[in-house]
Parts: sequence; structure tokens; C-alpha cells
Amino acid sequence: MYRKHTCGELRAAHIGQETTLAGWVQTVRKFGAITFVDLRDRYGITQLVFGERMGERLDAEPLGREFVLQIHGSVIERSNKNPNLPTGDIEVTVSDYTILNRSAVPPFTIQDDTDGGDDLRMRYRYLDLRRSAVRRNLELRYAVNRSARNYLHENHFMDIETPFLIKSTPEGARDFVVPSRMNPGQFYALPQSPQTFKQLLMVSGYDRYYQIVKCFRDEDLRADRQPEFTQIDCEMSFVEQDDILRMFEGLVKRIFLDVKGIDYAEPVARMTWEEAMWRYGNDKPDIRFEMMLCNLKKPDTVFTDRTDHRGLIADAGFNVFDNAETVLAIAVPGASEYTRKQTDEITDWVKRPQIGMQGMVTIKCNADGTFKSSVDKFYPEERLKAIAHACRAVAGDLILILAGAEERTRKAISELRLEMGQRLGLRRKDEFKLLWVLDFPLFEYSEDDNRWVARHHPFTSPKPDHIPVMIGNDPSIPDPSAYLSHPYAQIKANAYDMVLNGNEIGGGSIRIFQRELQEKMFAALGMSEEESIHKFGFLLGAFEYGAPPHGGIAFGFDRLCSILGGSESIRDFIAFPKNNSGRDVMLDAPSSIDEKQLEELQIGLK
Amino acid sequence: MYRKHTCGELRAAHIGQETTLAGWVQTVRKFGAITFVDLRDRYGITQLVFGERMGERLDAEPLGREFVLQIHGSVIERSNKNPNLPTGDIEVTVSDYTILNRSAVPPFTIQDDTDGGDDLRMRYRYLDLRRSAVRRNLELRYAVNRSARNYLHENHFMDIETPFLIKSTPEGARDFVVPSRMNPGQFYALPQSPQTFKQLLMVSGYDRYYQIVKCFRDEDLRADRQPEFTQIDCEMSFVEQDDILRMFEGLVKRIFLDVKGIDYAEPVARMTWEEAMWRYGNDKPDIRFEMMLCNLKKPDTVFTDRTDHRGLIADAGFNVFDNAETVLAIAVPGASEYTRKQTDEITDWVKRPQIGMQGMVTIKCNADGTFKSSVDKFYPEERLKAIAHACRAVAGDLILILAGAEERTRKAISELRLEMGQRLGLRRKDEFKLLWVLDFPLFEYSEDDNRWVARHHPFTSPKPDHIPVMIGNDPSIPDPSAYLSHPYAQIKANAYDMVLNGNEIGGGSIRIFQRELQEKMFAALGMSEEESIHKFGFLLGAFEYGAPPHGGIAFGFDRLCSILGGSESIRDFIAFPKNNSGRDVMLDAPSSIDEKQLEELQIGLK
Repeated sequence: MYRKHTCGELRAAHIGQETTLAGWVQTVRKFGAITFVDLRDRYGITQLVFGERMGERLDAEPLGREFVLQIHGSVIERSNKNPNLPTGDIEVTVSDYTILNRSAVPPFTIQDDTDGGDDLRMRYRYLDLRRSAVRRNLELRYAVNRSARNYLHENHFMDIETPFLIKSTPEGARDFVVPSRMNPGQFYALPQSPQTFKQLLMVSGYDRYYQIVKCFRDEDLRADRQPEFTQIDCEMSFVEQDDILRMFEGLVKRIFLDVKGIDYAEPVARMTWEEAMWRYGNDKPDIRFEMMLCNLKKPDTVFTDRTDHRGLIADAGFNVFDNAETVLAIAVPGASEYTRKQTDEITDWVKRPQIGMQGMVTIKCNADGTFKSSVDKFYPEERLKAIAHACRAVAGDLILILAGAEERTRKAISELRLEMGQRLGLRRKDEFKLLWVLDFPLFEYSEDDNRWVARHHPFTSPKPDHIPVMIGNDPSIPDPSAYLSHPYAQIKANAYDMVLNGNEIGGGSIRIFQRELQEKMFAALGMSEEESIHKFGFLLGAFEYGAPPHGGIAFGFDRLCSILGGSESIRDFIAFPKNNSGRDVMLDAPSSIDEKQLEELQIGLK
Repeated sequence: MYRKHTCGELRAAHIGQETTLAGWVQTVRKFGAITFVDLRDRYGITQLVFGERMGERLDAEPLGREFVLQIHGSVIERSNKNPNLPTGDIEVTVSDYTILNRSAVPPFTIQDDTDGGDDLRMRYRYLDLRRSAVRRNLELRYAVNRSARNYLHENHFMDIETPFLIKSTPEGARDFVVPSRMNPGQFYALPQSPQTFKQLLMVSGYDRYYQIVKCFRDEDLRADRQPEFTQIDCEMSFVEQDDILRMFEGLVKRIFLDVKGIDYAEPVARMTWEEAMWRYGNDKPDIRFEMMLCNLKKPDTVFTDRTDHRGLIADAGFNVFDNAETVLAIAVPGASEYTRKQTDEITDWVKRPQIGMQGMVTIKCNADGTFKSSVDKFYPEERLKAIAHACRAVAGDLILILAGAEERTRKAISELRLEMGQRLGLRRKDEFKLLWVLDFPLFEYSEDDNRWVARHHPFTSPKPDHIPVMIGNDPSIPDPSAYLSHPYAQIKANAYDMVLNGNEIGGGSIRIFQRELQEKMFAALGMSEEESIHKFGFLLGAFEYGAPPHGGIAFGFDRLCSILGGSESIRDFIAFPKNNSGRDVMLDAPSSIDEKQLEELQIGLK
């Protein structure tokens, strides 16, 4: 070893000992004949003192930032102790040193608040990775990895590797494909997830499987999407939904404890998908704060079991509400004193193209019990009071109301709720609230193809009660305009998402394990029998030989780490991420390949 | 949960308890009105008793092999205990049961000695995986995984994920490539190993890295090669060779202890590459047995520091030896009484095309101290005795001698040694002998291109003493016939292989960490400056900013598991392996893809 101790190891107890250290020059400070150097490695920083005797050598060849040094010296007590540094009680007087490697001046400073822009730091990722902010992220990632593995191991899960060179069966997202040289004209695909393999492992009796595994999706990249990403992928046999929920809230609680020191003792909240959409306008509600939706008006075709407050706004001659499919409100706590300028600014915010509303109605619930609204002339105070009551607003609140088409308006009020929560500081980074969202619809309707698509994936089971509905009905949709009244529109999935602070961190389902039901599912998704055999014959085959009831879940590992680390960006938690065009700018990949390689693969460029 | 206990859990202490079990029907045995069923899951087998009351239902719908059952019943003491089964003290009398799923008759028996052929078992891999022989292999694999992770964690290694979609830089093996839809005409490559990334992580100061990671090589498959395989990949900073050897023999010893219960207390043997080639004819000698080579004659151009015994065989008028470049012998212990038929059979064995010898000379060292040879007429007894002495043969041994061209003959005697070791039962599956092979040549000579190729890879450092030889000499080879006398032929690498029972299970090196030396290496391998910048500019760049001394190792995880499991085949230790044509016959991959996919990728088939 080039060292006897690391740069984070020496304490007062080492005073008087000889040591050898190796690391990087963080800073060089000269005070007359004495030079102080902070030497850095992964474990910490140690202050070195180069005495007068070294002056000549240092003058002849000054030490620069990021030089790699090996030093020999003695540990002494610091006169000027630094309580912020674990090694702050000591320093090392250098008796001899070797420059192991020199460094050019880095293109940006290796500090938490670096002067390097995004592009520069991506290009010199190996230098960006030196910054302690980034190192802490990767350390957190490893801690989550370790914690998850320990919990799953203790619960009898086995890590079983599934293949990366598989068959292309694009459903939803595009596959990355890999031309096969040994089978010209044929291609492997990289897995979008190990879904079918983990189900086969259940058929094979492995009972509990997990893997922390790379997955690949060739999608048009949005901000903070990566073409390769990591899942904590799990599957269990002989379970019902509740078994899965308990097992995996246990996993996340264990990660909180191991990684953040948080004892998440309270039960994890559970909410149906319908309740989430009704109360939050969103299937991954942030429940760190209330500010729930008041459904003043909704179309008859949705939330058929629920009652809105349409009477409160009807017959007032206010065309905007009368003509709107949907009218939704939130009560913003303590915001009744917002100025006209402030409410105008919020109105502008909801009119942005990303939100797409035409306008916004406000009702101020004044502290003195009076009400003031932007639609006073349509609604007398008594009616405003009734609306405020329906919204559960109290004196001091500001009610914001959006109106328009159902889907867009619900999405908009959900965004507005999050925005107001953010502005009021209700979304605290150090507060963590878990939520299970349950009972998703099994199908979504695709207008383009006038057919059903799987909301989760084609292997998700309906609720046991809904299996007869699925088996007993023809999936075809004779009248596209009435798709909502097709029996399939009411089928709920035996599926669940885990939501953390408004982010979906995991999702899964109880799977179909009967061949007949799986065939019906493929048919419902518009697959011919030939196509389903071609793509998934191995799975249908496996279901012939004693498939057990099973279900599972996959967590988005990158996202989970970024939320635990208090960051918006998953990129900060990936050692070598790609940019928004899917490029690795450090490697300069993808890139052109040799003509010889193309020839061997028997493919050509168009 | 569908069960209260697993099928491997119930013991005498549970007698009298009610239970619910779920699993697969292993066997059904009817005795009059009583039916016995062995119910199986991953954890074990439990005997069920279906009493008279169930008879009618069982007759109406008989239980078949591999049916999935859930049963309720009481645990009772077995009258006829089975000491070979952990649950053998009890059985469960069934009070009620549910058939969770039926099974067609499997195409082969789900037993250790199955009647299924290789192809059938690959096609129905999900059924083959049910066999306990295969399950034990995957359990062993997971145990090795877990043990390695624990050891590396305790030694401050961090698991850091490196990317799978990287840049194609084919060196040696072919890359699998992935066309980029978003960057038409450009390709990613799948990593042959995370080599350059782990080096960058050292440059970034991560100090100790590991990963258990899939790697990809598009090679023509030989038996027992897989296009995707798994490595335990490790790298450390501020280390010299000896630090790495100690750290990673510790890893393998820990795996022996955790997985096999073997306390490998003895030091791991170390041998130079030259010694291994001289004594065993092989760079991965099986040292479970001796039977070392006697170098009777070798060319002057190789092993220049070593002395052969050419005098013992010269000047006898035996043309075969006189004309041969190389003559090598082994003394097979206790084989002097082999019959003519037996020695003829061995002669035939060395004449097989895979070995390629013209013939074999034998010397019997008889128990009475006399000698008998197939070349008696050239060598009188006194000379035979001297040869036997050189071979360290004792009375009762049989000396086998091969002669021919250096490379082929050394390889042949090495194979013969292994074969004789096998025949004599000297290669015991339950004996494990580790060996470090050190000081490999840095370069091999490529006759095709008349240039040097890296024996390990282009990032391996020469021995510190040999750096000046490398820097100070022109790598070009003016006289191809004299390549052995080029200074580069003598340069030794700072590299090491770990060998277990004659198999290379891991290999690594101290890396180059200076830009100048790395550039010289690329030049020595025939790369132009442009080419080296195009392919490895990021690494050369990284070396400008304070790269620390570092080195590492990668273990072949599949192979390591197969040896620990006592098997010849890595396929038995991979959940979903590919066949020798690189096909997954269960999935039927690779396969053709849609025209639409090709269009989106802007590639065409030739």
C-alpha cells in the first residue's frame, strides 16, 4: 500500500505516530516559509505541514491543485483545531514526500459550489465525480443498494440474474435491439424489465426473487429520463396484494432507517386510484400537505359513484362554469390577503401552455368572515359561503377555482395544488410521506386504435371479482364514443404503486397465472393468437405446467435515491449518466462504427 | 399468504398444530383408501395424507404431477419416519385443499436424474429450473454473490454501477453494438468489461470499487462460452501487486468459508508465468497433483535463463529426438505395470487431432530397479536411468515423452499431464487448490500483423523495472523472424491470474496511470495517435488530472460458481443460458424484428 492511514482516519489518539498518507492536493496555503496542504481522499481531508526544510523543493516545483501526493510524516496536535473536520484535532508534519502524479489545472473547481457548467461537468465527469456533493450521492446510492439487499436476503429473496440479450416484444415503449452476427438478419433486444423472466422463476418455484438490475427503454428522452436505468426488481409466489404491500413497505422503511436514520413507524397510507384522482387530481399525490380538491362539478361519465357540488354553482348565469365539463377548487390556507398582483400572477401561471387553462376564479375567505370573489356579480355572499364550506375553507383561506374539460382541468388543478404547496413551503425535503395507491383501472382506452391498452402491463391480473367480467365479455368496442360504458372500462387491476412525496417510486401487481386469462388479456390488447404465441409463447407454455399465484413490484432505483438525497435530478445519482439526447459526452457515444463491423453484422445504414 | 408454513419448515415441535401449505405435487401414492402426496417448494418436501373422506373427490379429479395445491390440515407424527428428509418426522393430514393450478404432464421428469435431453431441457428451461440439482446450483451462485459482497463491503469497496450503452472500441474480441434511433447511423456498444470506467472511478478518487456485472463478447462460441457472462469486477487505488494479491485471496478464501465451509488456511501458492510454462506447460496449472514436466530439450530462443537436459538424449542416433525442437516428459506415478494395450491407447490419445502429436515414447521404471523403454535400441539402461533421474521418476513410475515443435509439444504434454491426473483420480472435485500466476509477458507477437498485441489488455502496466525498456525502445519489428530478440518480448507485465484447480478464475493487473506510458502502449499496439484519441481520449484526458496508482482484478463469476459446484459446465449455473449458437431456444431469440423498427433505426438488412 502507498499509505498507512487514509486521509479521514487520523485522530488525537494518533499523535506522536509516524504515518504515510496518499491523496489529492485540495488546497495549498503558504505562510512565509511554511506551507499548509489539505490532502484529500474518499475518506476525508488531512492537513499537512511542509516546514522550512521543504521550502526550496516546493519553490522549484510548486504543488498544484489535484496533484497526487504520497507523504511520510508525524502526527502532531494542531494548535488551531478545526471542529468541523473529523481530523481537525491533528495535522501531519511532512518529513518526505513523492509526487505520484501531476495534474493540469482542472477546467472547473472541485468543490461543492463548483464554477463548472453542466456541459463541462458532463464532459469531465471523472472530475465532477471528485466533488464531495457527487460522492455523497453515490455513497447514498450504495447505502440504499446495501440496505435493500440485506432486507431482501433476510426475507428469503434470492438474487437471480436474468439475461440481457433477449427477444424483442415491444409493448408500449421501444426496445433497444442488438444485431446478431451469428444469426444474420436477426436481433436480440435489451430488456425493458425482467418481467417475464421473474414470472418464469416463480413458475420454476424460486418463491422469492430479487435483482438490482439495469433496464433499457428507447424512448424520446424527457428531462431526467435515461435510456438505461436501474430497478430493484422483486417477485413472490403464493401471495395476495396485502402480503406484497406489507413486505415492500417494510423494505422502504428499512431503507429509511439504514440510510437516513429515520424510523418510519407510522403505517403507510393507502388510497384507491379513484380517491387519489378525486381528491388530488393525480395518481401519485403528494400527501405531505392537504389542500384537497373540491369537486364542484364533474361529467356524469366519470366517478359515477361520487357526488359533486354542482348545485352550488349552477343557475347563476356564469357561463364559464355552466359550459365547463368540470369545475374544481382548492382552498389555499392563509392566502386570503394575497394582493391583486399576486392572484394575477397565479392566473398567469395556470394560463401557461404547460397548464393550459383559460383563466382562474378566486374567492377570498376573509378573516372577518366575509367573502370576496372575482365572480361576485354572479354569486352573492351566501352562495360563496356555501362553496367555501364545500371546499372546507376557513377564514383566511384563498379558494382557487379552475373550469374546463375534465381531463385537462383535473390535471391543471393538481399542478396548481403542488405549486401552491411549494410556494407555501408545505413540501419539505426532509419530510417523507409514503402512500400506496391501489385499484388502478386495468385498461386505458386508445383513441388512435379504438382498443384497450394495458395501464400497467399485459401480465397484471384483474381484481378477482372482475375476472368473470373480463372472461365473459367481448373486448371489442363497437361505439368508440361510448367506450366508458364498456364493461372493460370498469375492470380494476390487482395493481399498486408506491408513492413517496408525490413521486411514483415503485409499482407492481398480482400477475395473471392462468393461461386462459392471459390469452384473453392478449386478445383484449388487440393481439392475434399467432402474435401472442410468437411473442409470449414461452410464458403461455409455462402457465400449462403448474404456475403458482404470484405478484411483485419494481422500484425505480435512480429516482428513489434522488428523493432520499433531496434532489430533483436522477442524473446526480448516476456515476456516468447520459445527457438529454441520450449521449455520453465524455465517451462521445454513440458513435459511428467500422465498415467491417457493419459487414460482419450484415446490416447497412440508410 | 396462501400458506402458513413452507414445505421445508415443519418439525416434530409442530405436531398437533394446524397449518396451511402451498406447493407442487411431487409424487402421488395410493394405498387403498389413503393417498400420500409429497408436496414440494423451494424450501423442501412435506408428506401429505389424504384420508378416506377425500377419496371420492380425488377419484373424480386425480392430482397430477406438478399440480399446484393449497392444503389445510394438522401436523401429526409419522409412524414411518424418514431420517433423510428434514421434515421426515411429521406428515400433514389434509382436512381441505384447493387446486390452485393444474399442470399438463411435463415433457421430462422433474428429478435429479431426469429423462430429459439437453435440447428439451433448454426449451423448457422453466421446468428444468425446478429440478433440485439446478436449484442448488443457483442457490450456490447466490451464496457466492452474497459472500463476495459482504467481504468487499467490509473492506470498504463500493458497488458503483457503470453504463451498459457505451462506445465501441473493439480490441481483441468483437463488441455487440446497439443502433441509436436518436442518433441515426451511430451505435452504442455493450461493454466487454467495465475496465475503463473502473479506472476513471479511481481517477475520481473512489478508492475501492466493485460490481457484480454482466459483460458481453460477440465471439464465435466454443463449448461453454456465453455471449453474456458475469464478472466480479474490482479496482483499488494506491496499491501495489502484493496488496491486490492479499486482498483478493482473502475474498476467495471467504467465499470458500461461507459457501463450502472450507477454511482455506494455507497461504495461496504463487508462481511466475515462466515457471508455470516450464513446469506445467500451461499458464493455469492444476497443482492438486505434481507430475511436473521434465524439459529434456527446448529451443535456445525460449526460457533463455533455464537449462534443459538435452545431453541425456543427444547423440544416440534417435532421429525423432534429434530433429525435434522440444522434448518433454512426465513421470506417471505407479503406472510402470501398464500393459502394451494401455500404453498404445495413450499413444492414440496423444495422436488425436486435438493433441496432434506424432507418437509417444515410454520408459517403464520397474519395481525391481530396471528400466524398459520403447526406444531401448537407442538408449542403454544407464541412459534411461539418467533420464528417469532427471524426470524425478521413482521405481514403479511410467515416463511418457513427447517430442515436436515447442509450442505444440508443450501444450500436448500439458494436456497429457491433466489426462493422466484425471485417470489416476488425482484431480479430486472436493479438493481446492488456489494459485497465483505472476509476471506474464506484457506483449504477444501477432504474426498476421507483424506487431505486438496486449496479452492482457492495453491498460496493464509493465513491471516498474521494465517501464524504461518500453519507453526507451521503438516497438516496430524490423525482422519478423527475430521478434523474440526484440526488447519488447522480454517485458513482463504487472499482471496476475488466480487459478483454481487448473482453471483461470480471475485475472488483473496494476494499471498504467501515466499519460505518456499509456500513449506508448497504444503506439506499441499499432494504434495511430488519432485512433487512440478517438477511442480512448477520455482516459488519456483523465490521466492529465491527477490519476493515482491503481490496479484491480475481475473474476469470472459463472466459472467460479461452476468449479465450486463441482461441475464442468457454466451453463448449469446460469438461470437462462444460451446454447452454443448464442440462441435462447426457450424465447426463440434472437429473432427477426418489425420493418417499422428497422425503419426507425434507419438501418437495412443486407
